[in-house]
Amino acid sequence: MTTAIRMQPADQVSVRRNNLSLVLRLLHERGPRSRAAVAAATGLNKATVSSLVAELIDRGLVREVGTDEQRRLGRPATLLQLDGRNVVALGIELNVDFLDVLATDLSGEALVRRQRTIDAAGQSRQRTLTSLISLARQALDEVRTPATTLAGVTLAVPGLVDVGEGMIRLAPNLHWTDVEVRDRIVKALSLSVPMSVDNDGNLGALAEYRVGEFAGTPNLIFVSGQTGVGGGIIVDGHLLRGARGFSSEVGHMRMATDGPLCGCGRPGCWEALIGLKPLLHDALPDRAADIDAPDAPPEVKIREIVCRAEAGDQRALEALTRNGEWLGRGLATLVNLFNPEVVVLGGFFRDIAPWVLPVADAIVRKLTLAPDAGGCRIVVSRLPFSAAALGGAIHAAERVFDDPALVPFVTP
Amino acid sequence: MTTAIRMQPADQVSVRRNNLSLVLRLLHERGPRSRAAVAAATGLNKATVSSLVAELIDRGLVREVGTDEQRRLGRPATLLQLDGRNVVALGIELNVDFLDVLATDLSGEALVRRQRTIDAAGQSRQRTLTSLISLARQALDEVRTPATTLAGVTLAVPGLVDVGEGMIRLAPNLHWTDVEVRDRIVKALSLSVPMSVDNDGNLGALAEYRVGEFAGTPNLIFVSGQTGVGGGIIVDGHLLRGARGFSSEVGHMRMATDGPLCGCGRPGCWEALIGLKPLLHDALPDRAADIDAPDAPPEVKIREIVCRAEAGDQRALEALTRNGEWLGRGLATLVNLFNPEVVVLGGFFRDIAPWVLPVADAIVRKLTLAPDAGGCRIVVSRLPFSAAALGGAIHAAERVFDDPALVPFVTP
Repeated sequence: MTTAIRMQPADQVSVRRNNLSLVLRLLHERGPRSRAAVAAATGLNKATVSSLVAELIDRGLVREVGTDEQRRLGRPATLLQLDGRNVVALGIELNVDFLDVLATDLSGEALVRRQRTIDAAGQSRQRTLTSLISLARQALDEVRTPATTLAGVTLAVPGLVDVGEGMIRLAPNLHWTDVEVRDRIVKALSLSVPMSVDNDGNLGALAEYRVGEFAGTPNLIFVSGQTGVGGGIIVDGHLLRGARGFSSEVGHMRMATDGPLCGCGRPGCWEALIGLKPLLHDALPDRAADIDAPDAPPEVKIREIVCRAEAGDQRALEALTRNGEWLGRGLATLVNLFNPEVVVLGGFFRDIAPWVLPVADAIVRKLTLAPDAGGCRIVVSRLPFSAAALGGAIHAAERVFDDPALVPFVTP
Repeated sequence: MTTAIRMQPADQVSVRRNNLSLVLRLLHERGPRSRAAVAAATGLNKATVSSLVAELIDRGLVREVGTDEQRRLGRPATLLQLDGRNVVALGIELNVDFLDVLATDLSGEALVRRQRTIDAAGQSRQRTLTSLISLARQALDEVRTPATTLAGVTLAVPGLVDVGEGMIRLAPNLHWTDVEVRDRIVKALSLSVPMSVDNDGNLGALAEYRVGEFAGTPNLIFVSGQTGVGGGIIVDGHLLRGARGFSSEVGHMRMATDGPLCGCGRPGCWEALIGLKPLLHDALPDRAADIDAPDAPPEVKIREIVCRAEAGDQRALEALTRNGEWLGRGLATLVNLFNPEVVVLGGFFRDIAPWVLPVADAIVRKLTLAPDAGGCRIVVSRLPFSAAALGGAIHAAERVFDDPALVPFVTP
């Protein structure tokens, strides 16, 4: 299946950049280790490693942290560790009912988080973007110092994105079509670094693949429960994107020919069966009037379902069982198609997992052709943050891992 | 998304093997060209290319074929071309109602094809495997000479395969579970070369990706209409396999909660709605008794539907429309999940395409979230052979493209 024919000799500058990147990623992904261990893992000779490490230290990206006590022979070796404190990466999630801005350092440690409840479907685009820009500016002002380098900014949106153009092509639940967001935000924030826009499910999957409980699992599916049901799919360690970047629209799998109407205008989408609104309406029929009101954040509404379920409310329990059944049917199709090692459920599925996960899991096992569901595990996300904003920050930080020389030398 | 950390220096033997492979693949995939053009495309220097080409000529894998008339400056250059005549690759398809054995040369040119109608679900496994082995032996006897090298043998089966073990894990329509096929066939044919077993949909997709009308399209889905509905999915130029190789079971996507019963024992699978049997029963109700009889090959039965449709038979036309509708609904899910450039329909869908394709295409356009179905085209396969047997032969030939030195020097 190899199709790459062209081989090109790398010039010396790009060789050094690649090697700096290799060492920085190694320390990030595999943790602290000695120069000798870096040399062994990368195949680079020790003199080259010493020179690369010296440059990374001078750029404030790596620091020495004590010695390796487990070393059995010879002198204890000095350990090297990623030092991400001088770098800031910004992830922003724009969703139907909330904005979430997360600034991290290079290692992915949270520095600042700002959230706001909004009603993106009910208010003007301009108002939503103004809120977003204001929140992002606050976060940046709080974390940036003269010594920090901003790696990049990545925005997560619930819809189809033209990644190249930084445009939202179609976000059904926002009612947005063909909106240029990247250039507008870059201008408003006077950004001098690249900004990316990507689908929230993709960035959620990236977060799970990089720092979630099942980080590094080659075939991982992330399904996020919000107003919409988004998803991101890792295939053999790479994010599935498809021809135009419009893949992984799991929420729009067809589950029934005449099911309830979806936000996209079609009947029978998975999202219309297991998303936030159908669940709320099913579980809280007496609160129907409040559910579509934009004032209460979704967590509050979900909490009410959980309270009622814990109190044994029959209607809530039945609604959760139905949600679990439809969840399982859709997951079975994903498992039959992708044969993943793991499916990670995020968003409100984390809250209702005690009720829906056992139901969904049993159905996946029953409806998957491969015995034992092909070995797939269905789990809930353990990430502490909104996965999409964190995925955005991780994505934004990539630029420095790709080219550590972007970060200037630290003046002593 | 880069996770490969370890770099290893290649030793000289493997460097030469890689370079021989690179040159042979270049001539195969991009067609005849001069030594200078090979050097330019690979980045190898001209002396190295000359030495590699000399070895490939000595092994009978490349030949000189006239001169490049389009060359504008200097002497006309001698063109090099893949010469696959000394190599044989064998692809075998085992399906519910037929066996298909195809021997090709290295270039994929058909040398011998042997087919037989069987009733794999109704007869013993032993009988089916005996037929298969006998057919394969006939084909091999016919094409092998003392001068030929057998590259390999690859068997396509309609079910879940443990590729590492060469075992069929589960083939619902054959009613086979956990059958060791590879070792049995290797022994019976006294093969001294590796044999592989793979899913028929995967090998069909490989054939389309390598030599079909849309060869080289990075995101391509192949859907095959047989007794079962199989599929194979190319993602970014690589065959999707998943955690254990059980991916791409498109026939078992859940389309309806209480649909007709599938061969796998579950209701509502796509295959139970659009496969051969449901179509035949729907289109030819007066022939119900004959449809499940194993004597007539499926092409004959499909031809009867086509004849009736051409004659304007209302029942046949309605059945084809229903088939197209369900086909479109399932394809829409695939298009929403994978955003492929193209979906290629094989098997009996080629015959009924004039009726079902327009219906399915319109539904895909309607049910896909991305505008214009994300740019996806739905087409029928133009491959002259059963795609899975051809994919098997292509897969088997890979071994020589990976390591051309497996083919001995030609004695003058």
